[in-house]
Amino acid sequence: MAKKTARKPAAKKYLDFHGRMVMVGFGSIGQGVLPLILRHINIKPEQITIITDDMRGGEKEAERFGIEYVEKRLTESNLRSTLDNRLGQGDFLVNLSVEVASTALIELCQKKGVLYLDTCIEPWPGGYSDPNLSVSRRSNYALRDTMLKLKQRHKGGTTAVVAHGANPGLVSHFTKQALVNLARDTGVKTPVPTTREGWGRLAQRLGVKVIHIAERDTQVSPKPKEVGEFVNTWSIDGFVSEGGQPAEMGWGTHEKTMPPDGKRHTFGCDAAIYLNRPGLLTQVRTWTPIEGPFHGFVITHNESISIADYLTVHDGKKVVYRPTVHYAYHPCDQAIISMHEIAGKNLKQQKRQRLIVDEVTSGRDELGVLLMGHKKGAYWYGSQIDIHEARSLVPYNNATSIQVVAPVLSGIVWALENPNEGIVEADEMDFRRNLEICMPYLGPVVGKYSDWTPLQGRGELFPEDLDKSDPWQFKNFRVV
Amino acid sequence: MAKKTARKPAAKKYLDFHGRMVMVGFGSIGQGVLPLILRHINIKPEQITIITDDMRGGEKEAERFGIEYVEKRLTESNLRSTLDNRLGQGDFLVNLSVEVASTALIELCQKKGVLYLDTCIEPWPGGYSDPNLSVSRRSNYALRDTMLKLKQRHKGGTTAVVAHGANPGLVSHFTKQALVNLARDTGVKTPVPTTREGWGRLAQRLGVKVIHIAERDTQVSPKPKEVGEFVNTWSIDGFVSEGGQPAEMGWGTHEKTMPPDGKRHTFGCDAAIYLNRPGLLTQVRTWTPIEGPFHGFVITHNESISIADYLTVHDGKKVVYRPTVHYAYHPCDQAIISMHEIAGKNLKQQKRQRLIVDEVTSGRDELGVLLMGHKKGAYWYGSQIDIHEARSLVPYNNATSIQVVAPVLSGIVWALENPNEGIVEADEMDFRRNLEICMPYLGPVVGKYSDWTPLQGRGELFPEDLDKSDPWQFKNFRVV
Ligand SMILES: NC(=O)c1ccc[n+]([C@@H]2O[C@H](COP(=O)([O-])OP(=O)(O)OC[C@H]3O[C@@H](n4cnc5c(N)ncnc54)[C@H](O)[C@@H]3O)[C@@H](O)[C@H]2O)c1
Ligand SMILES: NC(=O)c1ccc[n+]([C@@H]2O[C@H](COP(=O)([O-])OP(=O)(O)OC[C@H]3O[C@@H](n4cnc5c(N)ncnc54)[C@H](O)[C@@H]3O)[C@@H](O)[C@H]2O)c1
Repeated sequence: MAKKTARKPAAKKYLDFHGRMVMVGFGSIGQGVLPLILRHINIKPEQITIITDDMRGGEKEAERFGIEYVEKRLTESNLRSTLDNRLGQGDFLVNLSVEVASTALIELCQKKGVLYLDTCIEPWPGGYSDPNLSVSRRSNYALRDTMLKLKQRHKGGTTAVVAHGANPGLVSHFTKQALVNLARDTGVKTPVPTTREGWGRLAQRLGVKVIHIAERDTQVSPKPKEVGEFVNTWSIDGFVSEGGQPAEMGWGTHEKTMPPDGKRHTFGCDAAIYLNRPGLLTQVRTWTPIEGPFHGFVITHNESISIADYLTVHDGKKVVYRPTVHYAYHPCDQAIISMHEIAGKNLKQQKRQRLIVDEVTSGRDELGVLLMGHKKGAYWYGSQIDIHEARSLVPYNNATSIQVVAPVLSGIVWALENPNEGIVEADEMDFRRNLEICMPYLGPVVGKYSDWTPLQGRGELFPEDLDKSDPWQFKNFRVV
Repeated sequence: MAKKTARKPAAKKYLDFHGRMVMVGFGSIGQGVLPLILRHINIKPEQITIITDDMRGGEKEAERFGIEYVEKRLTESNLRSTLDNRLGQGDFLVNLSVEVASTALIELCQKKGVLYLDTCIEPWPGGYSDPNLSVSRRSNYALRDTMLKLKQRHKGGTTAVVAHGANPGLVSHFTKQALVNLARDTGVKTPVPTTREGWGRLAQRLGVKVIHIAERDTQVSPKPKEVGEFVNTWSIDGFVSEGGQPAEMGWGTHEKTMPPDGKRHTFGCDAAIYLNRPGLLTQVRTWTPIEGPFHGFVITHNESISIADYLTVHDGKKVVYRPTVHYAYHPCDQAIISMHEIAGKNLKQQKRQRLIVDEVTSGRDELGVLLMGHKKGAYWYGSQIDIHEARSLVPYNNATSIQVVAPVLSGIVWALENPNEGIVEADEMDFRRNLEICMPYLGPVVGKYSDWTPLQGRGELFPEDLDKSDPWQFKNFRVV
């Protein structure tokens, strides 16, 4: 079932870009994507400026490529003055920071006709952890809702690609490809859908009840995690922030019961619910081809809501179909212990952090979408790139970052090719064009069927509250 | 508050032993205790025989000390034939194995007048994981109940010390010392109790509501855990077995509500309850002086039941006082990931295991009793030995095993000094004599007060079901 693709990327230039490009943030993703941008877009180093709170060890790389950098912390009050004379009509703002509100940057770009891309909808500091905000307001659902309002206000504006990394981002394209493959393999004859409605109807027809973004990261550093240190393969600040947000999931029409701690929001599209607890303390059973079954964390992500929303089928005002969609994340082992440590301190973040890129000695990031409940049970479609292949493809990357920077590149290219689409999420973009650009950087991309269900091996030694009549109910997945 | 003790052990011989000693099992504890036995008991190598399923890399050590070993797996059917001519009146059986039923060995010893010691009540294979046994029957409560029946039948027999390692074992003595210290520090004038009733009344008078066996192991190997491997600082088979048993706790009289998944047994002393779930998936908030607050696992242990039972105060038939007692264990980080992995596979044990002793490069085992609910809040009393000190004190040990082998030694000495006590648990032994023998091997032994409670920093970002009127309710500790 493995989908074979050309895995040697040619240094093909997708297009010429003559404007200015400002990159905000230069952490694991910024450092990882820079060589890719220079490789595949016809752009001169002088056209690029990095603005970042700190360089996170990226000075040498910037100097090697001849990129100017400004070490400055963007805030609500200095945002306009800092960016105003660096960006104008036709320029590009690539936002790869934490703690800078995406909506503030998008508004600025919409007003000035500047193209935009980010990999996550970030709030200003405190947006994730201000106890004066309700749990609902600290959710990604709320962040996305603000973005959707902005989208309404700026219809037909300059293209702003929102939340287009690996996940959120790439996994929306994986989902479409997986649906197409599933149709093929189950004998459902259909043209490739071209509308939101069409995709929803296809998912409905295939009987997809649940979609996990199922990820198992096995990368490891030979230097053990120390007490009081958070170790991860990508942004520690980003991970801790989203881990402290409520667990969230696009909420499927097949679900019979609301989780005891589940809540609906009182505003917005209503495609998702949240649990009254942090994702970092919320686990579900899931599955990937190499790892097999494992427990993953329901860390909230934009794609949980956007994919569920995108695939919703309406009959008039009535919702007749929607899959349950959420993240089921097994970060690298050293992050698992870091999470256990932080959980024990009521989520108070460790003072020290260590982002492992060069020091990773082995492991892979198995990241894909797991479509469940259809005729063939479960189908995982995604990337299984390992650290060695990732490194050989693009310098300054590990297996995790390369899965992010490939879609950052493809999103930039797509935005330049389609500059007047207004504010868009991954689901609204051309999945084929994006996959085409990403594929050379994803290592083995495979589709695998499995007879795994969350009921497998359950209730043998201890009584468990299971719904045996439908394996795909959320309560069967949940680890309690 | 640190209790200073002489930390240089002299090679003092506590007594002469002229009989034969059979050691069953030669894993981390067997290998760790052998040099101690030879150092502190006047015994010749020829008097000792090791019988074990496999030597677990201990061949060199046995040869170095000139100890005969027999590689043989003991079973229900070969037990008598294997041991009969190796043990007689006045000899000593030291059981440091897994998967050999303690009660079978004890019966044999009682019949033959053989002294006995183990560190844990083990069943025959399957006793922990036979789905045909009820959850209650797979508990340590049930194992202990069988032992208590045997104890009744063999009153005044040859001494058999049951469950006398670090925990169970040493921590019972720590508890008594902690009660004495607490009385001293809170101005409660009392002679040191000499009876079970006396100890119970003292704990009651001091207002001790909860006792955690609070342990944080920070030992680490520079070789990362591999996928499909369980890494730990002591018996992996032992840990996985007990982790798959139900979570159990001595159940205090101050508890207002039964946990939703809590159950009483329908037989026995009724001092404890169990949860309808494995300890490996059950966490509580706890505290140790160096680590501070952390999440520990409620792995079932004999001491949770024996200490609670021992400290129970009756008024006629009515129970008027009992503390809640249980283990709150943070194993070494690499075991945490191993547990997460095994949990994801419905507790199916990994094929490979790696017991880390020589390869540990840093870390300590902070193991003590945390007495809570009294006038001064929380008081932790225990050992904080680190790997380097452990190694310098006794070869073939890490910081975990040395805390076990010291009380194995003291238990053997005590049994030899008191050969006609019948079947006894740690709680019934002389805590002063045992502590005296153990202390030189425990590194820093400290008592620390803390204002920590499980309500600290709770309910800030998410609503939580807390009992704010009594911090010491089990439901406040529990991680849900
Ligand atoms: N969609 C995905 O798949 C995906 C994957 C990984 C990361 N991300 C997101 O991408 C972003 C970057 O991730 P990373 O791993 O590179 O993070 P990182 O923590 O490695 O780096 C963050 C960068 O932002 C900068 N920064 C922080 N505050 C700033 C401010 N106020 N002004 C300017 N710069 C500031 C830091 O100095 C640093 O250079 C995060 O938002 C993260 O959540 C998305
Ligand atoms: N009370 C405590 O503080 C404490 C601490 C650590 C270990 N323990 C207990 O001590 C025991 C030994 O622990 P360890 O870390 O040395 O274990 P280990 O896994 O390192 O070694 C177990 C030994 O038992 C032997 N064995 C297994 N099955 C056998 C059989 N059927 N017949 C004969 N021998 C057999 C193995 O070959 C091995 O030598 C376990 O029961 C464990 O739970 C208690």
